[in-house]
Amino acid sequence: MNDQIEVSYRFPPGVDAGRQARVIAVGQTAGSWDARFQHREAQLREHLAEVLSVEPLSDGSHAAKVAFPRANVSGDIGSLLTMIFGKYSLGGPAKVIRLKLPDDYGLRPRFGIQGIRERLGVQDRPLVMAIFKPALGLSADDHAEILREVAFAGLDIIKDDEILPDLSEAPTIERVRACRRVIEEVGRETGREPVYAVNLSGRADQLLAQARMLVAEGANALLLNVLPYGYAVLEALATDPSVQVPIFTHPALAGAWCAAPDHGFDYGVVLGTLIAHAGADAVLYPAHYGSLPFAAETEADIRDILRGRGVFPVPSAGIHPGVVPRALWDYGKDVILNAGGGIMDHPEGPAAGVKAFFEALDRAVPGQAFRLQDVPEGPLRTALVRWGVA
Amino acid sequence: MNDQIEVSYRFPPGVDAGRQARVIAVGQTAGSWDARFQHREAQLREHLAEVLSVEPLSDGSHAAKVAFPRANVSGDIGSLLTMIFGKYSLGGPAKVIRLKLPDDYGLRPRFGIQGIRERLGVQDRPLVMAIFKPALGLSADDHAEILREVAFAGLDIIKDDEILPDLSEAPTIERVRACRRVIEEVGRETGREPVYAVNLSGRADQLLAQARMLVAEGANALLLNVLPYGYAVLEALATDPSVQVPIFTHPALAGAWCAAPDHGFDYGVVLGTLIAHAGADAVLYPAHYGSLPFAAETEADIRDILRGRGVFPVPSAGIHPGVVPRALWDYGKDVILNAGGGIMDHPEGPAAGVKAFFEALDRAVPGQAFRLQDVPEGPLRTALVRWGVA
Repeated sequence: MNDQIEVSYRFPPGVDAGRQARVIAVGQTAGSWDARFQHREAQLREHLAEVLSVEPLSDGSHAAKVAFPRANVSGDIGSLLTMIFGKYSLGGPAKVIRLKLPDDYGLRPRFGIQGIRERLGVQDRPLVMAIFKPALGLSADDHAEILREVAFAGLDIIKDDEILPDLSEAPTIERVRACRRVIEEVGRETGREPVYAVNLSGRADQLLAQARMLVAEGANALLLNVLPYGYAVLEALATDPSVQVPIFTHPALAGAWCAAPDHGFDYGVVLGTLIAHAGADAVLYPAHYGSLPFAAETEADIRDILRGRGVFPVPSAGIHPGVVPRALWDYGKDVILNAGGGIMDHPEGPAAGVKAFFEALDRAVPGQAFRLQDVPEGPLRTALVRWGVA
Repeated sequence: MNDQIEVSYRFPPGVDAGRQARVIAVGQTAGSWDARFQHREAQLREHLAEVLSVEPLSDGSHAAKVAFPRANVSGDIGSLLTMIFGKYSLGGPAKVIRLKLPDDYGLRPRFGIQGIRERLGVQDRPLVMAIFKPALGLSADDHAEILREVAFAGLDIIKDDEILPDLSEAPTIERVRACRRVIEEVGRETGREPVYAVNLSGRADQLLAQARMLVAEGANALLLNVLPYGYAVLEALATDPSVQVPIFTHPALAGAWCAAPDHGFDYGVVLGTLIAHAGADAVLYPAHYGSLPFAAETEADIRDILRGRGVFPVPSAGIHPGVVPRALWDYGKDVILNAGGGIMDHPEGPAAGVKAFFEALDRAVPGQAFRLQDVPEGPLRTALVRWGVA
C-alpha cells in the first residue's frame, strides 16, 4: 500500500459521488483508450486509479476515497496536485478533504522542531515569535532597532511581515545586514542568537538566488509565502545545499484555496500535508483563538499533520499573553507562539510584550484561564488588561 | 494612475463591503501604527491603499474597488498575490473579481500570437492543436508514431497531456528526442515543423534545469501547469535566456482557485490577467462549448484579456470540428483550437481528425452551424456524425 496515494473528496448533496469518483479515477489518470492501444493494455491499466470507498456523510454530502498509483507522479507536489485535482477542479463542485501520501513521498524538514530548538538551545518550552510592524515603510535601521529591543527581552524568533517584499526603497539585503549586526550583538551578550526569518520574493530563479545570497550574508532563517510562490519553490529552497537555514512558511492566499465550503481543499491538506511533504521547517497558520474564522478542529488537524513529520506548528493571528494557558493545553511545549500586535502593541512597548509572554509561560496552568486578581503588576498584567484572557 | 494596482472585490449579501474594503486597504498594506512611528508617518501613509468605490450589485452583493500603491510590491506575481488577497483570504467570504495592473507591470510574452504564427509560418487562419492520448502508459516511440500521423496530416501544434510528468518509466527527454526526429522529418518533407509543447515537472530548480536541457535537445515549445507549480516558475521560464521557445500554460487546478461562488478569484484574473503579466505565450482554458461548466462571458473575458497583451488564447475541452463555426464567430482567426478526443478519437484515426478540422475551417461560415446534408463524405462528415454540431 505504500505505493498508493489516497485522496478523499467530498461532493455536496445532489452530486452522484460514486460516478464522480470513477470519473476522477479514470479521467485524472490514463483516461480511456481504444483498440489501437491494445498492445499497451497492461501499461495503461497500471496507471488507472481505484475507487476505494464512497460513504454518505451526515449533512447529505458524500466522501469518496480514490487510490492513485504513485507511478503516475514524479515525486513532487506540482505533479501530485495536477493528478489529484488538476483538470477535475474545473468541473463540478468537489473538495479535497484528505490526502494520504507514502511516508517517503517528497521531503522532510531539514531542521523542523528539533533543528530549530537546537539552533536556539531551547528544549523545554514553547518558542516565542514576533513580527516586525508596521509592515511597510520602515528603514533597515528601524528594523534593527526593533529587533534589538525584543531580542534583549528574550525573544526567540522574529519574522518580516509577509507583505514586505524586496523593495527598492527598502531592500531586503539591507534589512538582513542591519539585523545581522544586532543578532551578533545579542549573541555576544546573552550567549544566544535570535532567529530572524526574512521574507523572500521575486521570480523563482531570482527568489532562489536571493535566498542563497541572504544566507551567505548571514540570514539565519527564511520566510516564504508558499501559495503565492508555489510549492515547487519551497521544494527547491528545502533541498538547496546553500540554504542551510530553517524555512518558515506563511499561509497567505490559503483562503483562496480552502475557505469555500464545496470547492478547493481542506486547510489540513494545503497547510498540513502538502507543506509537510514539501520540506518546510515551521508552518504558520491561523489559530482559532483569534479573529479569523478558523475552527479548533481545523487547527488541531494541521498541528497533528505537521508534528507527524517533525515540522514546527506556528499558530498565528490573535495570539497574545492571555491565550497562553489555552495554547499550552492545546499544544504542550512543541509550538511556536507567533504574536504580531500581541507583542509589538503592548502598552509598555515591544520588550514588555516579550516579557509578558515569558511571564505567561511561567505562570500558566494549561487550560486554566488567568484570573486578573492572581497576576501582580507587570507586563503580563498589563497585557491581560489590554487584550483579555481566553 | 499608472502607479496604482486596482483590485475589485465582490462581497456576498450580508457583508459590510465598505468596512471590509477599508480593512483590506489598511490590513493588506501598512497596517496601523502608533506614536512610536510618528517619524515615519509620511513613508507609512504612502503605502496605504485607497478605497475607490463601493457599489451594490443586482444580486444583493457588493463590489468594492481598492487601489494599491505599486511601490508595495516587487514587480512579480507572488508579492502581488500576497498583497491583494494574502492574509485577507483567510478571513470572511470575498472574491477577487477584477485586477487592473499597469501595462508595464510584470512580463509580456516573448512569442505570443505573432511569434507562434511566425514559427509556424501561418498568418491567416486559426491554429489546430492536439493532445497526446492516452495520457499515461505510452512509450516515447508511441508518441513519435502518433506525432508522425497527425503532423503529416497538417497539424500545427501538439502537447503532452498535463498529467504526464517526468516518469522513470517514461522519461520526458526520451519523448522529446523521439518526437524531435519526427519534427525534423516533417520539416524536411513539408517545409514546416510542427510545434510540440512538452510538459514540465519537478521542484522549481529541477524544472528550470529540465526546461533548459529539453530546449537544448530540440524541444520547440514547453507546457507548464502554472497553478500547481506557481506563477513564479512561469516568470522564471519566460525570462530565461536559454529558453527561447513559446510557453503554453495549462489551467489545471484553476477550479480550486476560481470555481467557488464567494471565495477565491474570477477565472479572468487567474487565467487571464495574472498569466498574461507572467509571460505566457499561449494559455489554455476551458471553452464553453464543451462539458465543463464554463460561461460564454467568462471565456470571452479571458480571451480579451490575453489578446490585450498579445497572448494566444487556447480554448480547450469539448473542441471538435462541429464547433468550428461557433469558434470562428467567437474568436476570428487569432485562436488555437485545441482538441483532445476531438482529434485522437476520430473514428478514422487521428490523421482524419486533423483533416476534419481543416475541412471545417475551409467550409465554415462563422456563426452558422454545419448542416449535415451540406457536408460531403469525408473526415469532417464523419466527425459531425460522431460529435454533432454546435
